Parts: sequence; structure tokens; C-alpha cells
Amino acid sequence: MTRVINFSAGPAALPLEVLEQAKAEIPDWQGSGMSVLEVSHRSKAFIAVAERAESDLRELLHLSDDYAVMFLQGGATLQFALLPLNLSRPGATLDYLVTGSWSRKAAKEAAVVRRVNVVADATDSAYTDVPARDTWHPAADAAYFHYTPNETIGGVEIHAPPDVGATPLVADMSSTILSRPIDVDRFGVIYAGAQKNIGPAGLTLVIMRRDLLERAPEDLPNIMRYKSHAEGASMLNTPPTFAWYLSGLVFQWLKAQGGLEAMAEQNRAKAELLYDTIDESAFYANPVARPYRSWMNVPFTLAKPELDGQFLAEAAAAGLTNLKGHRSVGGMRASIYNAMPIDGVRVLVDFMAEFERRVA
Amino acid sequence: MTRVINFSAGPAALPLEVLEQAKAEIPDWQGSGMSVLEVSHRSKAFIAVAERAESDLRELLHLSDDYAVMFLQGGATLQFALLPLNLSRPGATLDYLVTGSWSRKAAKEAAVVRRVNVVADATDSAYTDVPARDTWHPAADAAYFHYTPNETIGGVEIHAPPDVGATPLVADMSSTILSRPIDVDRFGVIYAGAQKNIGPAGLTLVIMRRDLLERAPEDLPNIMRYKSHAEGASMLNTPPTFAWYLSGLVFQWLKAQGGLEAMAEQNRAKAELLYDTIDESAFYANPVARPYRSWMNVPFTLAKPELDGQFLAEAAAAGLTNLKGHRSVGGMRASIYNAMPIDGVRVLVDFMAEFERRVA
Repeated sequence: MTRVINFSAGPAALPLEVLEQAKAEIPDWQGSGMSVLEVSHRSKAFIAVAERAESDLRELLHLSDDYAVMFLQGGATLQFALLPLNLSRPGATLDYLVTGSWSRKAAKEAAVVRRVNVVADATDSAYTDVPARDTWHPAADAAYFHYTPNETIGGVEIHAPPDVGATPLVADMSSTILSRPIDVDRFGVIYAGAQKNIGPAGLTLVIMRRDLLERAPEDLPNIMRYKSHAEGASMLNTPPTFAWYLSGLVFQWLKAQGGLEAMAEQNRAKAELLYDTIDESAFYANPVARPYRSWMNVPFTLAKPELDGQFLAEAAAAGLTNLKGHRSVGGMRASIYNAMPIDGVRVLVDFMAEFERRVA
Repeated sequence: MTRVINFSAGPAALPLEVLEQAKAEIPDWQGSGMSVLEVSHRSKAFIAVAERAESDLRELLHLSDDYAVMFLQGGATLQFALLPLNLSRPGATLDYLVTGSWSRKAAKEAAVVRRVNVVADATDSAYTDVPARDTWHPAADAAYFHYTPNETIGGVEIHAPPDVGATPLVADMSSTILSRPIDVDRFGVIYAGAQKNIGPAGLTLVIMRRDLLERAPEDLPNIMRYKSHAEGASMLNTPPTFAWYLSGLVFQWLKAQGGLEAMAEQNRAKAELLYDTIDESAFYANPVARPYRSWMNVPFTLAKPELDGQFLAEAAAAGLTNLKGHRSVGGMRASIYNAMPIDGVRVLVDFMAEFERRVA
């Protein structure tokens, strides 16, 4: 078997060690004579997996008991609807900072059920920059302030949480969670689809300050209430057991790597290597304002876009896959999540330099 | 490795052939150098998997194009809330037939958002029987009629769809789907959590007559609209790719077994073997009225309940696992879904007879 170097934006590459362990445990998990795919979520063995995953995650994030952790379904996109429904009442105003495709989608979905105040919209820069803090227009009485710290498509990352005063800060961290330490106490809610830095698609992590759990209106169905999920230890109904198990293996792997402090060092080094290659070249370009360049998703264009197809074909032949940029922005995109080793980025930048020499 | 004989009610045993194939395809799927866990849902390779799964399912169920098929998240329980929100307007009345724990839960969740008319409630029989059709009180103008053809906990199965006139029939088939042919044209909606007869936990199948997709009110968030999911080929957001893939392998396995006609024969034979053993014994008993005994979930009690623990321990030692009944009814429960071979049931009934000889 030849593993490729997979730059997919998500569902994304998983650590090989995690995959090998999952493989070894099918179809006989822990000597049970069953696969983990076949055990009840209410069995002792699975509950141990679930609790270990949560405690490892709490350790990685230095989470205090002020926060509930939920392992849910539906993707970040379902939370786009559930967050306004749980955290505010009809008539309330919600602040949304729009810095790209995902924060725009989140704001649009919230606007179906609540009044949305777009604090600022980076559309003027074609979502390659973040409007300066002093140009934002937050509402006086917003129920929360929502932003997307890392925009997966545009490759725009807000590296430190913004100051929004006493308004609870809600962050879609789908493509940045676990890439570095976070000061969780700055946040009311952190949520993330699993399929980038956590585990396989089909699991959604929601971390919520416990006082916010109490905000849900009475007429919200039970299965849509974060409070019920938190009280039910995310087993209000059958959870996505295999995705939870695999995410737990990823958390163990992250601890073995040295935790989020070590991941941050690696991720910074990977990103610098790639951005330096781009910046030192007259052939490649990244459109994002430097303070907001993402550590996780690096879009870049070729000076000769007519060579895009050749670049992608030759990269794939060299084992570098899924480098095509999102259809909405074109060009290339290298997603370099936690599971991408720095050696993978080295192979990419060597390929890029060699390609440039031949064609530029 | 010794595989046990796993009678779990769900997440439940999967066909060994399916597990072996999934194992073989980690971490290199179809020579791609990636696991199926690591590929984009929008990649050609995954879309081929998704489309094949749907077409195999359509073939198994003889589904006409009048029906949309959706591969969603959230479990049957999320549909308890989404169905009333999509299929009716505020103020509408919904008919619910209550024959056990799951239909009662479905009715309760619907009642949070709409007026629920309980057509009949089998509580008088402690949910071991189904009220006669002529005692039901359907509303004149119900937006739909909901029932649960198989109650996983009580082991009560309604073997043929009831006559509800022109009212669209909505069925939670979580624990009976794919166990036998269904006359889908009798139904408006069929939905099912995957974790019994379809695949692993984390996937929910919704089959909806297309005209019903049009009913959703305008103020429903997009991610909660079945119509949007159907139009987006269940890729409105990232679907649970691995669960979808594995379910597709189960559908292929079902076709190789001879389809649902062959499964029905096997399932009938398995159920008869087990019920005959129970009925012929003075030691074991099943409480369910004979016309409504489930093919999938067979609860039974021992004449000496003080031996329950010994029965379970000796069964487990003999490789017969997860026979403990649901905490709400006690006793034993053998769930004998599609993946349970008749030989597994033979081992169980032999064990039961031998246990009875020793202790009765």
C-alpha cells in the first residue's frame, strides 16, 4: 500500500496510527468478539470509550467544569439553526461577523429564525481580509456574538478571539479546533464538525458554558435542546458510536504528540514553510492579508492559471492529492490539518519549486 | 478471534463479510492510498458509493421515483421533531398510534410543536397487544398518521400497514426496515435509524413521497427541511460518509442473500424457531399477543426471575451476548436482525433448552 499525501479540506486525512488501530480492532474489539460498530452505546465498554474521549478532550483543551461537552450529530450546519433556537428567544438580536462563506451561511440560517445584525462583512476584500475591529457595529443587546475563527474556503484565520465585551462569544471552530491551545474561558460556545481535526464525518462537538444551556425556550423539541443532550451525556438517543470512538483515538494520539502546545508548534512550522515558498516565488500567490493567513487551509494561485490542470495532474502523480481549490475561489488549496506531517508539506513545497522551475 | 453471537438491540451485529471488507479497505480504499474515512463527500469516488447505495436500496425496496431517499443524521429521534415541523403547519392535528415506548416518545416530541391526537394507546395491555382497528379514533383532518411498525423494546410488531384512508402514513421502521418486503406505496414516509438492519449508528434513512416534501413552512431553517436535503442529494452539508459507505456494503450483502424476499423467509424461520422454543416450554414465556409478535426483537422471561443473572452469565460464557432485556421491561430480549444467522438462533435455543433442563 502506498499512502498518498492527502490535502483534502474535509473529510480530511486521519493519523495513520489511528487508522491502523481501528483496522486492527475490526471485527474483534478489546477481545469482545464484536466490532465497536456493533456494541450498544449503553454498554459498559462503550461508555468507558465515551468518557475517556471526553476526559482526554478536556485535558487537551484545559476545559473547566463550567463547560459542558457534547458529542452530537448534524454537522456544524445543524448548529447554525440550533444555536439561535437555543440561545435566544423570538425577537432577539444576534451579532454575526462575516469573514467568508461559512460565517455567511451561519448568519443566513440564523436569520430564518431570529434578527441577525451583521457586525461587519468582509465582502469588500472578497473575503481575503478581516474588517478592522473599530469598524464593527455590534448590537447593544445581542444574545450572542458569532464568528468563524477559520474560514476553510478562503483560508482566513482570526488568530485570537475578538473582544466583544460581555456578549457570549460563539465560534464555529470546525477547521481550527485542536490545532493550537485555546483560551476557552473567552468563549460561550465552541462547536466543530469532526471531519477536519477531530475524527470522521458524522460527529459534531459542542462545548457550551453551562449557564447558556438554560436559555432554551420551552417550546423547543427535546432532541433539539442542548441542555437535554448535556444532561443525557450525549446519549439522549443513539450517538454515532464509531465516530466517537475514532475521535477518542485521535485525542489519545494528540496527547502522545505532546498536546495542543506541540501541535501549535508543528502547525506554525508547516504553515510558515508553505507561505514562505509562496511568498518567495513570483509564480505562486496567496491572496489573504498576512495577519489573517490560516494555519490550516492555504489557498494559492499560479501566475499562469492555464497550468492549473497540469499542476494538479502532476501533483497527483507525485502522490499529492486533493489540492484543487474550492470551486468558489479557484486555484489551489492545501489543507494542512493536524494529521498532515511536516514531511508532507516538504514534499509539496519541493514539488511546487520544481514545477515552477520547469514551467515559469 | 472468536466472534460472539450478538443479540444486541442496537447498535447491533453487522454481517461479518461487511466488516471484513471494511477492514480490508482501511487505510487504502480502492487503491486510492486513502481510507474512505478520509475522502471528500464531493469526490467522484465517494459520490459513486453514495449513488450505488441509493440505487441498491431502491432495488431492494422496489422504490418508485415518486419517493425521495435521504441519508441523514440525528437518528430517528431527531425525525420525531422534524417530521411534524416539515409535514404540518402550526395548529394542525397529527394522528399517533401508541403501541410502546418508541411510538409514545414520538408522540410526545410531536406534541411540543403540534396538536397530537393519540388514536389509541396500548397501555392497558402494558404494550403487549395492539388495540383493535375499530377502537381507534383518528382525527378527521390529521396532517399524517404516525405509527411504529416494530417496537424494539416491547417486541410488538404490526405486520401489515394499517388502513388509514387518505391520510399519509408515516412509519418509524428503525427496527424492522429491510427485514421483509414492504409495500412502500402504502406509505407517505418511512424512516429508520441505521443501527439495526442498515449499518452503523450515525446514519438515518428517510424515504418520503415527493409531494410531502413541499409541505414545509417557510420559516423552517434550511438544514431542517427535508426538501432541501432531497434536492441536495443528502449533501446539503457533509454527510456521515463512513456510515453511508458501510450501509452500502450491507445493501450489497442483502442483494447477495437474495433480497428482502429471502430475508423474510430467514427472519420468519428464525422467529418461529425461537417462539416455538418459548411456547413449548413451561419455563420461558413471551408476553406479546401472537398476531403482534416481532420477528426482530423477542423478549422473554424465565419462570424463576431470580435465575436471570445466572442465565445471562452462562449465556455469555457460551458466546451468547447482549440478551438482557430493556430495563423498562426486565427479563431477556433476543434481537435477531438480518445479520443474525439462523445458526445463531439454533445455538440460543439449544442453550435455553439445556439451561431449563438443569434448573427448572
